[in-house]
Amino acid sequence: MGRVITLLTDFGYDSYFVPSMKGVILSINPNATIIDITHAIPPFNIFKAAFTLWASYKYFPRGTIHVVVVDPGVGTSRRALAIKTRNYYFVGPDNGVLMMAAEDDGIEEVRSIENRTYMRPTVSSTFHGRDVFAPVAAYISLGLDISLLGPRVTDPVRLPIPPTYVTHGLARTAIIYIDHFGNAYTGVRSNDVPILGLDYGDELAVSIPRKNIELRVRFLRSYGFAKEGEALALINSEGFLELSINRGNFASKFGVEEGDEVVISVIK
Amino acid sequence: MGRVITLLTDFGYDSYFVPSMKGVILSINPNATIIDITHAIPPFNIFKAAFTLWASYKYFPRGTIHVVVVDPGVGTSRRALAIKTRNYYFVGPDNGVLMMAAEDDGIEEVRSIENRTYMRPTVSSTFHGRDVFAPVAAYISLGLDISLLGPRVTDPVRLPIPPTYVTHGLARTAIIYIDHFGNAYTGVRSNDVPILGLDYGDELAVSIPRKNIELRVRFLRSYGFAKEGEALALINSEGFLELSINRGNFASKFGVEEGDEVVISVIK
Amino acid sequence: MGRVITLLTDFGYDSYFVPSMKGVILSINPNATIIDITHAIPPFNIFKAAFTLWASYKYFPRGTIHVVVVDPGVGTSRRALAIKTRNYYFVGPDNGVLMMAAEDDGIEEVRSIENRTYMRPTVSSTFHGRDVFAPVAAYISLGLDISLLGPRVTDPVRLPIPPTYVTHGLARTAIIYIDHFGNAYTGVRSNDVPILGLDYGDELAVSIPRKNIELRVRFLRSYGFAKEGEALALINSEGFLELSINRGNFASKFGVEEGDEVVISVIK
Repeated sequence: MGRVITLLTDFGYDSYFVPSMKGVILSINPNATIIDITHAIPPFNIFKAAFTLWASYKYFPRGTIHVVVVDPGVGTSRRALAIKTRNYYFVGPDNGVLMMAAEDDGIEEVRSIENRTYMRPTVSSTFHGRDVFAPVAAYISLGLDISLLGPRVTDPVRLPIPPTYVTHGLARTAIIYIDHFGNAYTGVRSNDVPILGLDYGDELAVSIPRKNIELRVRFLRSYGFAKEGEALALINSEGFLELSINRGNFASKFGVEEGDEVVISVIK
Repeated sequence: MGRVITLLTDFGYDSYFVPSMKGVILSINPNATIIDITHAIPPFNIFKAAFTLWASYKYFPRGTIHVVVVDPGVGTSRRALAIKTRNYYFVGPDNGVLMMAAEDDGIEEVRSIENRTYMRPTVSSTFHGRDVFAPVAAYISLGLDISLLGPRVTDPVRLPIPPTYVTHGLARTAIIYIDHFGNAYTGVRSNDVPILGLDYGDELAVSIPRKNIELRVRFLRSYGFAKEGEALALINSEGFLELSINRGNFASKFGVEEGDEVVISVIK
Repeated sequence: MGRVITLLTDFGYDSYFVPSMKGVILSINPNATIIDITHAIPPFNIFKAAFTLWASYKYFPRGTIHVVVVDPGVGTSRRALAIKTRNYYFVGPDNGVLMMAAEDDGIEEVRSIENRTYMRPTVSSTFHGRDVFAPVAAYISLGLDISLLGPRVTDPVRLPIPPTYVTHGLARTAIIYIDHFGNAYTGVRSNDVPILGLDYGDELAVSIPRKNIELRVRFLRSYGFAKEGEALALINSEGFLELSINRGNFASKFGVEEGDEVVISVIK
């Protein structure tokens, strides 16, 4: 059984980009197990890719190599990175997309990918996913020491994360992620719940100023405890306070978007 | 070569849900071969998931473990099931989504998944795909006897199937499935064709009352025997009488939906 | 490690078609590695499938079997082909979809698939992907000599390719492919660039008559050398002169489609 390599891109499912990367990987390491995280990141949305990686990387076997290609700066002077963390490897552009996950696992070493030995013989200016990141990941899966890829990097680019302020009874936060079902994740975490003084069954007043939305929702354990079509709040599987509609789509019903500010107060 | 595990969900291709399940599976059984059935089931559409599973499960190698997560009741008191059939295993929520396929193959044993030994150490209230169904499937792929998962279930939930009535020259049925090309499958089966007295080349009068549609179509062997853009009827690869347009999209052209009633009469 | 089989279809990601093919393959060769090229080819778009195959087939390991099912003539008298080229195998309908890639690699042998020994026991009229192409590919992956499949074919169907004329300073061409990001590939190739007398930094006048578009764009090395939102031209990873917008979508902004005529002149 070969090593697992995951792929996370904004390349879509409709093009030749992703399979070309897989072909390159299998040509170098026929025993690699390639798993798609997703290729439906909205084009150039680095934050969404970073969050998606963070939410999934940790469930893979130790030694998995996570490749991310959301790379609007491809072909410019932006660096290409290979990162070794406590349990994983991360490969992708130096635009912050890798760092939320890499720092969560604990970074051990960051290298700038410059050694052309581990790239395809011809490197295009527009498709480093195929010509740089895929072969590098494949060689790492064969045991390549990332120190051979290039010089150490001490200042990788980090993404700003929208701030969340929590006090007793009140949270000022933002929608940080909207999932496939239209559930809207706020920046409030499960360990903020005791600070907020929030208990199951409490009502929350939710305000989303950009959309002039003022809602009252119950804080429940799961979707099915609300009535069909009822908005609710819950702590979701990633530990975030999430706004949802039971069997509905919160984000599309209320027109909310990632980045929207949210103010939440607990009503006792 | 490891055992095959298939995944069928309404989680979409744009989120971290499916890859997190795959990571969990590969962490337990690195030799599992994971195949996606589809993750594009419309949210919470249990019947469409059940039909999709029924149409594909039987082509997989004996011993394949089919995991389905279309689960609006996650985190409530709905049971989680592991089913052993003549040739396969089925894992998913007890809402009927597994039963059309499982009963088709022949059920040998149904268990309620309750033994936390075979779940992730922390089980969220909203993502049993990752925390319950994925690890259970992985353990079954390693040889786990499903009787260890929990008590026997004798009353699994079944889905109602829309009725179809066939007599000589006349069928009253419904659209039970619309496929990627917009082909509309009726509930009339290939073994109903002699009862109807239907022969290739015959004309059919098709009525879809909800849309006030009255059509005449020919009953042909395949799409390409109709003119480009011509509506036709055929017996499709799953054995259903299907309404189609050669090189076109029947469902979007006529606005028909799954569940719509259809009356078909044979014109000789 | 088994042989690689790739799948390229217009079956979508929402149906049971693709997984049924995978089940059939794994039932014949449990060690096959199955890779999706894409299943999001617009229904019946043979040229787009042919281009997508051409752009990706060559990155796969020697011996890979590429299966393409974009097959509006399924069940009629159109032939089914198995092609052996210098490095690969190609399996699919005889409608031209395989030939751009197969001729690029160098055809050694073309056979009409007629021997029912290598098909599923029951062959439907509408789903040869599952009943013919998948099993044939699986048997080839086990070492089947394609001469056993049926008679030699000397006149496989070829697709017309839109013509491109290049002289010093002027190119008359067409949009041959639009990718996931809305980048529009013209028929001008990298080896046409010296004939055109085109250098990085030059301005191009681009005319797209169907849409009354007259644009001036710079010819640059990669997207990030243009300003955000600026249209540009570049030689892309497949060697085509491409029209793009940095961090934008050229095709949707200007409403251009595959097949549109384009006239490009170099401004010095």
